[in-house]
Amino acid sequence: MRALIFDLDGTLIDTVYAHVFAWQRALDEANMAIDGWRIHRRIGMSGGLFTRALARELGRDISTEEAEELRRRHGELFLELLPRRRPLPGAVELISFLRSNSILFGIATSGRRPEINASLDVLGIGNETVVVERGDVARAKPEPDLFLACQQRLGVGVDDCYVIGDAVWDLLAARRAGMLSIGLLSGGYGEDELSRAGAFRVYRDPAELYRSLDELGVLP
Amino acid sequence: MRALIFDLDGTLIDTVYAHVFAWQRALDEANMAIDGWRIHRRIGMSGGLFTRALARELGRDISTEEAEELRRRHGELFLELLPRRRPLPGAVELISFLRSNSILFGIATSGRRPEINASLDVLGIGNETVVVERGDVARAKPEPDLFLACQQRLGVGVDDCYVIGDAVWDLLAARRAGMLSIGLLSGGYGEDELSRAGAFRVYRDPAELYRSLDELGVLP
Repeated sequence: MRALIFDLDGTLIDTVYAHVFAWQRALDEANMAIDGWRIHRRIGMSGGLFTRALARELGRDISTEEAEELRRRHGELFLELLPRRRPLPGAVELISFLRSNSILFGIATSGRRPEINASLDVLGIGNETVVVERGDVARAKPEPDLFLACQQRLGVGVDDCYVIGDAVWDLLAARRAGMLSIGLLSGGYGEDELSRAGAFRVYRDPAELYRSLDELGVLP
Repeated sequence: MRALIFDLDGTLIDTVYAHVFAWQRALDEANMAIDGWRIHRRIGMSGGLFTRALARELGRDISTEEAEELRRRHGELFLELLPRRRPLPGAVELISFLRSNSILFGIATSGRRPEINASLDVLGIGNETVVVERGDVARAKPEPDLFLACQQRLGVGVDDCYVIGDAVWDLLAARRAGMLSIGLLSGGYGEDELSRAGAFRVYRDPAELYRSLDELGVLP
């Protein structure tokens, strides 16, 4: 039995640019201006790594309290900027197809509850679906913990899992978990960045992935 | 005599993600939701092409009035979201180096006055510099008009111009103008996208370009 493990932001929901802009504003307010593209390429990595990367760019330490305040302010701005979540094209149809065809799938996200609840709601994902979030594991992407926890809860082997993600961090974490991975352009990375990070296929968005399920070897 | 022709947004000023998000909001308000990454990859192309691309994605026509209202609302949201312009790392130093070493340079942007004035101000670019903006030419990028107008005002040959831009549209317009081009990652494109569009070098941002001027053959 094959199983699909999905990232959430940028893979099923169109939230990446709102996240980038909310970070840019939160950092600017704290007098820690960082280029937009550098934030973009770090969305989806663990908060600890993100903070360390920031500190390196700024050339100074960021205290735990500062990091916590930045996270809080980012969350606040994100909700203000994007009150309504929008599924990416094909995401709802893909999820519903997997469900009606009894193809195993789960969600593994660096996001946290309750922030991710609105996204799960618009996708029609309820308690029947395995959802692993940041709070469930010790270490976030590019560590493999989120994907391994999801695989274990799905009750399948590592070899039978396909990770679908939009960020280099998803693809690196998949490789470290020993899983195959598929990249989506819907998070704003270039095709080549995703291929080089290990994706064996790259599609534009969930709609193109849905139309291409035959290319993956996951259909029963 | 060699000359450098710079794009503005995403090349010298950190505005791309604010533009993407302002478009996303303006379109969403008009019930024309479009994925963030699709907007991102169209920043810097001519407004007419942008509107046509939107219409194709939405599967319906967009009237001239609708397009005009979208542009107006985008401009309003952009100023609201990003009241303060921030030069990209190295941009101010690079401009000042070119000036003190009498290396010819100009700006050629799909943006318009008065919107671009704040960006030119923080870069220290005044009336002494050749600035070609959208209103000065009939057709915007990827047509070559902006770069050709800049080259003519600089009084150098097409062969002696190097275009520096962050978007595929800059690099395509440069090729059509018969000019060499250099890509910058600071607009959020991947390196490979820029190389394939014709950039013979790709740098991270103006700071890395500044440190690498010797690799370009433009220094006297």
